[in-house]
Amino acid sequence: MAEYSKVAPTPLLKDELDIVIPTIRNLDFLEMWRPFFQQYHLIIVQDGDPSKVIKVPEGFDYELYNRNDINRILGPKASCISFKDSACRCFGYMVSKKKYIFTIDDDCFVAKDPSGKDINALEQHIKNLLSPSTPFFFNTLYDPYREGADFVRGYPFSLREGIPTAVSHGLWLNIPDYDAPTQLVKPLERNTRFVDAVLTIPKGTLFPMCGMNLAFNRELIGPAMYFGLMGDGQPIGRYDDMWAGWCMKVICDHLGLGVKTGLPYIWHSKASNPFVNLKKEYKGIYWQEELIPFFQSATIPKDCTTVQGCYLELSKQVKAKLGKVDDYFIKLADAMVTWVEAWDELNPVEGKAVEANGVVPK
Amino acid sequence: MAEYSKVAPTPLLKDELDIVIPTIRNLDFLEMWRPFFQQYHLIIVQDGDPSKVIKVPEGFDYELYNRNDINRILGPKASCISFKDSACRCFGYMVSKKKYIFTIDDDCFVAKDPSGKDINALEQHIKNLLSPSTPFFFNTLYDPYREGADFVRGYPFSLREGIPTAVSHGLWLNIPDYDAPTQLVKPLERNTRFVDAVLTIPKGTLFPMCGMNLAFNRELIGPAMYFGLMGDGQPIGRYDDMWAGWCMKVICDHLGLGVKTGLPYIWHSKASNPFVNLKKEYKGIYWQEELIPFFQSATIPKDCTTVQGCYLELSKQVKAKLGKVDDYFIKLADAMVTWVEAWDELNPVEGKAVEANGVVPK
Repeated sequence: MAEYSKVAPTPLLKDELDIVIPTIRNLDFLEMWRPFFQQYHLIIVQDGDPSKVIKVPEGFDYELYNRNDINRILGPKASCISFKDSACRCFGYMVSKKKYIFTIDDDCFVAKDPSGKDINALEQHIKNLLSPSTPFFFNTLYDPYREGADFVRGYPFSLREGIPTAVSHGLWLNIPDYDAPTQLVKPLERNTRFVDAVLTIPKGTLFPMCGMNLAFNRELIGPAMYFGLMGDGQPIGRYDDMWAGWCMKVICDHLGLGVKTGLPYIWHSKASNPFVNLKKEYKGIYWQEELIPFFQSATIPKDCTTVQGCYLELSKQVKAKLGKVDDYFIKLADAMVTWVEAWDELNPVEGKAVEANGVVPK
Repeated sequence: MAEYSKVAPTPLLKDELDIVIPTIRNLDFLEMWRPFFQQYHLIIVQDGDPSKVIKVPEGFDYELYNRNDINRILGPKASCISFKDSACRCFGYMVSKKKYIFTIDDDCFVAKDPSGKDINALEQHIKNLLSPSTPFFFNTLYDPYREGADFVRGYPFSLREGIPTAVSHGLWLNIPDYDAPTQLVKPLERNTRFVDAVLTIPKGTLFPMCGMNLAFNRELIGPAMYFGLMGDGQPIGRYDDMWAGWCMKVICDHLGLGVKTGLPYIWHSKASNPFVNLKKEYKGIYWQEELIPFFQSATIPKDCTTVQGCYLELSKQVKAKLGKVDDYFIKLADAMVTWVEAWDELNPVEGKAVEANGVVPK
């Protein structure tokens, strides 16, 4: 054991972070992540047919929820959790008891840095989350808190303390996260460019948040990380993470929280089917032309000082303004409210009413 | 000659770009840049004692202006051009007849990329300037127009055409561009991180623009690239490029023009004296705490549709609001007006009244 502990020191935030994985298949991909994930707790959200048995490699500490579990735990409020779509992952955020979440897709593997070394993606996310963000002014040498970097000449000293980081958005080598039209037009494009940077997304700027390789501080922003209504019975898919990202960014900007993007990279192994994706995306592709101006101009009243309060306010604006775009957004706005109610039920402010196994006591 | 032309093809924008170099010494540094600069025209702005002779290596095509030339060409308006400060470089922008400017300091050398290859900084700047910018929404794979990159899923299609790029801000390996306090605290810090990215600074976000390694489209933004009153007889130094960057960014945001930062890197050879720098900077260090909020909240009326119009409007706001911070800003606001007048005199809208040798016909 002494020998072992030399090569596997206690990882950062071991008892404060859950890894959330949505899946429909056996989790063989975890083998490659074993050196980096094995000491953490996993929350597996099984998508699709609950009678199917998902195999998890030996030695991992995990809890697994299928649709029956979600229905049992949330009751009627389970309607806010998507079915047959990886958007169901946000149920894992809700049942976690930890301060930090890292979520990753099961077709994502360990990438290598330019020197050929395996990238410990989780460690980099934790570094990103534990160092401040700088959304009020752009630093041209990128993250000023990284080793070998700092604030450059002309950066106001009053802004150098930064603000707390709520979200760390990682990237992907090999298969880039393209929409269906781009996949169709550039079927052979691979991302081979390793950009050795982490940067804060400036205040007031929206970005496309991808859920494949993402970490966040659940205490700071958890209730805003709702992945919406996608998949079975819904008119769109593949906008779950985008929706969460836009809502989250507006709220982070309002509350003074930071969002970083860049490192770490994971290796995204396989492009999803562009024809299937096109079917899922096509409504989103034209809706988003109205969603972006909506989120760019959304303002939250000053008296909203909690994530839940901000999120409920945003849901009202979604209903009032996007409801005109399509009835779907009325349903989505209601689901946003349900999500917050369910979140608060599972995460009461006082005490720890929810057991570690995810069962809500009566 | 046929042999030579094989190794030195006509460089990009050869007849449309001037290289502006402010200097007080012989330009031996050009030897290292010979393969990349020799086919371009140089505008050398000699700072300090005009009786000193600046030697330029053989084979370069250049025009050189000393203080006597500046006084002769601008007459009383020469007061807007700084003396004994590299801010004088902006005189070179004014007398150029070309569409594009690249400006570089004489202590900047050719950097190497991670593969050991010499970086053609000018070529990268030109690529940056000739491809659009995307300030309205952040692309997580950085510049979507680079080879091997594109817009990611969730990026609105209506924004994928981008907007014209006005400015390309390059970075520095070895000596980072730190202020005096940071230089003093971290005397040994060197920038060794090569970040293989170009990105658009989002709309509404300010950044510290460094003049060491900078290119811009003179037709789009030239009259806003005024480097202010610095050096001899002025209370501050080392804020020339910052001032230009803040004014320029507010105007680019207003006019719908883009600003890129990142590649190319140059090799910055020598840190300037931090004690001397501290003396130049200390007023700027506390003034900038008021300058940044001023520029962040500055708005330009819709009917200002030219760079000159925007710049004159900004000068009024500088006088009205920053004049209260220090009388220096009243003088600076007046100099901004003088600068625009001098620019328009040397760059009349109709015809080509200014000769290539920089002499203004009577």
